[in-house]
This record gives sequence, C-alpha cells and structure tokens, in this order.
Amino acid sequence: MTNRSKGLAGVVAGQTAISEVYGQEGRLVYRGYDIHDLAANTTFEEVAYLLWRGDLPSAAQLAALKAQMAAARELPDGVLKAMRLLPPSAAPMDVLRTVVSRLGIEDPHMTPTPDQAIGLTAKIPTILAAFHRLRQGLEPLPARPDLSHTGNYIYLLTGQEPTPVAAESLGTYFILLADHGFNASTFTARIVTSTASDIYSAVSAGIGALKGPLHGGAPSLVLEMLQAIGTPENAEAWMRNRLKQGPIMGIGHRIYRAEDPRAEILRELSRRVADAQFFHLAWESEQTALRLVHENPRASRMYTNVEFYSAATLHAAGLPPDLFTPSFAASRTAGYTAHILEQVAEHELIRPNSEYIGQVGRKVVPLAERG
Amino acid sequence: MTNRSKGLAGVVAGQTAISEVYGQEGRLVYRGYDIHDLAANTTFEEVAYLLWRGDLPSAAQLAALKAQMAAARELPDGVLKAMRLLPPSAAPMDVLRTVVSRLGIEDPHMTPTPDQAIGLTAKIPTILAAFHRLRQGLEPLPARPDLSHTGNYIYLLTGQEPTPVAAESLGTYFILLADHGFNASTFTARIVTSTASDIYSAVSAGIGALKGPLHGGAPSLVLEMLQAIGTPENAEAWMRNRLKQGPIMGIGHRIYRAEDPRAEILRELSRRVADAQFFHLAWESEQTALRLVHENPRASRMYTNVEFYSAATLHAAGLPPDLFTPSFAASRTAGYTAHILEQVAEHELIRPNSEYIGQVGRKVVPLAERG
Repeated sequence: MTNRSKGLAGVVAGQTAISEVYGQEGRLVYRGYDIHDLAANTTFEEVAYLLWRGDLPSAAQLAALKAQMAAARELPDGVLKAMRLLPPSAAPMDVLRTVVSRLGIEDPHMTPTPDQAIGLTAKIPTILAAFHRLRQGLEPLPARPDLSHTGNYIYLLTGQEPTPVAAESLGTYFILLADHGFNASTFTARIVTSTASDIYSAVSAGIGALKGPLHGGAPSLVLEMLQAIGTPENAEAWMRNRLKQGPIMGIGHRIYRAEDPRAEILRELSRRVADAQFFHLAWESEQTALRLVHENPRASRMYTNVEFYSAATLHAAGLPPDLFTPSFAASRTAGYTAHILEQVAEHELIRPNSEYIGQVGRKVVPLAERG
Repeated sequence: MTNRSKGLAGVVAGQTAISEVYGQEGRLVYRGYDIHDLAANTTFEEVAYLLWRGDLPSAAQLAALKAQMAAARELPDGVLKAMRLLPPSAAPMDVLRTVVSRLGIEDPHMTPTPDQAIGLTAKIPTILAAFHRLRQGLEPLPARPDLSHTGNYIYLLTGQEPTPVAAESLGTYFILLADHGFNASTFTARIVTSTASDIYSAVSAGIGALKGPLHGGAPSLVLEMLQAIGTPENAEAWMRNRLKQGPIMGIGHRIYRAEDPRAEILRELSRRVADAQFFHLAWESEQTALRLVHENPRASRMYTNVEFYSAATLHAAGLPPDLFTPSFAASRTAGYTAHILEQVAEHELIRPNSEYIGQVGRKVVPLAERG
C-alpha cells in the first residue's frame, strides 16, 4: 500500500504561495504578511488584491480594484428573478450555493480569470443581502458604490449607513477569514478547478463544503450556546453537561496547536465593540470551557478557535445568526478565487487513490434465484 | 516535509468498500462484482441498490426500490418554476449543478440518508429532460412509472417509447459509469460530506467537478472530433495535426495501465447498436490514434478510455452531445450518493496540508508609501 492517512491529515496535497498556517506557533500569513499586521493596517479590498495578485496594491491599483468591484455588485436580472421565487424559509447557505451556481449560467466562460474572481467576490454580499431583504418581504436595495465592500454589505442588509462599530467589526472579520491554506472548502474548490471546470462550479462546491458544522457551519451554534448558557454562573454546569455529549463549539482546531491568531484578534475586537455584558458572558464561557476540557489528563492542548469570537463579532456587527456562516463564505470567496487562479496554472488533475476494503470475487446470481 | 505527491497521485485518501479500479489489470469491480458480469446480467436499478446497500437486491427488494424511485421522479413545483426562467442557451451541466443545489432548499435535512440518495438519483434524469424540453419550447412530460430509470429518461427527453437499441445502450452505459473509486468528482463529494454538510451540497459539488474536460467533460468532444475527421481516410492527417497541439480526446487514463474495461464493453456495444458507418469511423480513428501515440518511443502504454465509445453509445441512444456529460452525471449520482453515505459513517473531516512556497517576513507599508 502507498501513503495512507486518515482524512489526509498531514498529507501535503499541493503547493501554494497564497497563505500558510503555522499550526505549532499559532501564526497565519497571507503572501508573507502576518495576519495581525494585515488586520491592523489594511482593508479587505487590499487583502483581496494581495491574495489574488501576490502584492499589496498601490493607491492607484486599489482605486481601480474598488471601482471594478463596486461596478460588479449588481446581479443579472434573470438571477434576481429566480431569487424572488425562493421560499423565505430557505437556509442562506443553500441559497448562496445555488445562486453562485446559477451565476455560472450567465457567464459560461470556462477557464477562471482574475476578472471573474473579482466579479464573483463583489456579488456575494449582494446575493446574501437580497435574499435577506426578500425573505422579510422587502425589496433588495441598489448597491452603494461609495461604500466599501463590507460597508455596502451592511447597507444592503439593513438600508442604513454602517455604524463605525459594525464597519470595523465586519471589515476585520473579512480580512481574518479570507484565507486559510488548504482547508476543506478551499481544497474542494481546487479539486473542482483541477478538472478544468469553471469558477462558479468551484466556488459553489466550496460553499457547500463550508456549510458543514465540522468546517464553517458552527459560529451560529456558538451564539446559540451562549444564549443557552445565559449568564456566566451557568457556564460550568452547561459545559459539563455538554462535554458528556461531545466537543464544545468554538474550542479546538484541526491544525492549530497554539492559540488561533484569528481568535485572539477577534477576542480583542469583541472586547471593544460587543455589548459589555455579552462579552463578559462569552469570556467567562470560554475560560470555563478551556478549564474543563483540560481536566481530562489525556486531552491534548486545546485552544479557542476562530468560531468562538466570530459569533460575538458578527453579532456586534448586527448580523442575524443564520448569516454568520454565509458571511464567512463571503470573506473566504477572496481566498477561494485566489486558490482557483493558482490551481488553473497547475494544469494537473487532483485524483487520489482509495484503499479497497470491500468484497472480492463475487458472481451475479440471477434475480429469481436470489435469497 | 511530510508526504507529497503531485495531484495526490498514488496517495490513498481513504478506504472504501464500494468499488475498486485495478488499474494494472484493467479491471473494475463494484462491491466485489466484475463490471463485465454486472453489465451482462443486471439492470441499473440493481447496480444502484448494490452500490448503496452492498448486495444485489432480491426480486422483492428490487420491486420496492423501483417503486420508490418511480415515485420520487417528479420535481417540486418551485424547482420547476425556477427552471422555466433558465435561458435556453444554458449549458446543461450548469443547469444540473444549479437545480441539484436548488433541490437542497426544498429538503433541508442535514445528514445524508439512503432515502435522499434514492430520491436524488431518481430526479436527475427528470431535471435534464425537463430542461431539454423547455429549451426547445416544449412542456416537460410527466414521468412514466412503468418504465425503467433509463427508459423513462429517454421517454422524458423524446416523448417516445425507448427503442430496444436506445434502452440497451443507455442501460449499459449507466451501469458502467455508475462508480469508479475516488475519481475527482466522487472525492469532491466525499470532502463536502466530511464537513458534515448535506447530500445536495455534495452532489452539486461533484457535478461541478465532473464538468471539467480533464474529468467527465470530454465525451462530446470525442463526437466533435469524429465529426471533424468525417471519414476514416482523414483520421491520420487529423490526428497528426491534433497531436502537435495536445493529447487526443478519449485516449489515455490517469489510473488504467491496461485497457479500460468500460471502453471494451462500450466498443462491443457500439459495434452492435451504432450506425455501421459511424462505428467504422470511430474504430478506424481509435486504431489510428493508438498507433500514432505510440510512435513516440518515450510514450508509456496508452489505451482507449471510457469517453471514446461513450460518444458512440450515447449518440446511438439518440442523446444530443451536450447531454453526454450530464448523462454521465446522472449515472454517477448512484456512485456519488453511495460514497456520501459511506463517508457519513467515517465522521472524519478530510483536510490535507499544503506546502507553502510563497514569500515570508513581509511588513505592511502604508498605502501612501507604496510604489
């Protein structure tokens, strides 16, 4: 037998120059820049440019990108018409996956291009906000070209100018979540691209993978957990009960063996922008969870993951819980499309082997003679 | 660095009891049954049951499955309504990917079930046929519960009872293409499932991967090639010219180092069912291609792959070329869903590592100071 590893853990599936997760040290780097540096000193549009092109933009390049993204925000008529038929009860991740796939019908060009990456990334907030308006019986709003990518997203959702708190929270969140190596959904998008398929196939596939609670689907569950706990005094009893059934949402990560740097940044952001009482609940719940998981002497070191304070940050930005994971997808689309463009240049099908553990040497018995 | 292999070639990404590709010997086995045996002695419904359940059905089990599939063929009203808005020029693979994703909105159950596998497999031909009718300005037809899965597909496409040739061709094709180990689209569906996402996310992702010409997207290109060659006398000149630009469609495979058993079965099927003149053209073109690719003394042994005679078989069954790959997807959905159900039981995220080859140690320069 050849190389074998459960869930491909530790298997290097390819090369990338886009981002690196230093799991042992708890560092995340995009194109050589530390995530702390990017979160403190850049905007999402600059980070998206960095992921796509490899370098941060000049002022002129940034202005051109912002203009291109702003111009690409509106959805084709046929797509919006189809969205009007969606049931209001639809799960936003299902809507996003479907509408991204539907956009591919309008743009049949096969080999992914940078313009497609920019155009699709620009449209994701429009899709989510349009559906959020429609399900409330409201008309989708026209995009505001004067607002940033995340500022416009808040505007399209609410019809209000983004508050400074909401703008800062969502802008930082979008930077932090934009890429993360060969995570399951990005790897999915790369495999789809490796067959020489198109960018909408690849991104909608990634969104479908991100939906799963073992990947991107858990931040709203953290909020539900905090709401169920209610007050810090209840945290220990709630957590002890939860640990009998399974892991605690927002704690532990497949790659990090140190604190997830995104959790650290979002914790400090939440401390500043979230409601003080809510932050206190989140903080006490986190500390309790970390203490309890390490009571088991056989437990390896576990740390807070990005989802824990994603919930607090997105809640502070005014987003409804069922748009948490779709907003993760909106941010990660910059990363997906950067990886898709990188994969296009590889010209190599990703196709692993499997180990067959089934039966052998059977012969078909005629139907009438089967037991 | 840990295990590293370009495109995961030779890397075992997981275990399966569903199918095995014996690449060196040119054998394909589903659940221990040789594909020749299954193609000669079973129907697609029996093979789907085998893939899902592990054993061939008894007569009573088969009757129950056929009834369940027949009852599940119709599309929900909202889905058909959305399909009426699709542009007639849409690529059928884009339509299929989108409508499968759209079906997920109607069935929000998260963990994939055998009933979902059966229901979704039953609906794929309905989706393709409904779109094929709508794009011609015709009304979709109600499904015919008295017809087999592939017989009903032909009926829904054409409004005619399937001819014996069409029924045999498509039935055999669906058996042969139903599964093939960890091919790129099946592996995509398994990764999506591994995040604990839903069956529609997984299958629509697989369809997006199958669309790529390096995977499932090439059979219509074989037909175009044969039509461009026109007559057997032109084959050599055409092929020599083509070889200057790239590989010949339908020749060579990532896994097989012997004849693809599916190609062998489809060649013999085509010999019987295809138009004699067309078969002669296909056969002469194939022999010419195999001779020319081996003129290069450094070429490894190359064989005809499944796509070459897929084109002839599906053409003989009366399918339009742009439904060749979607019909591949219709067949492979049995395999996708079997793998999805197997992956659900694994409870393990598939998440590889990547090798970072980008820059390190960069610091953000303020926007105004960038060159």
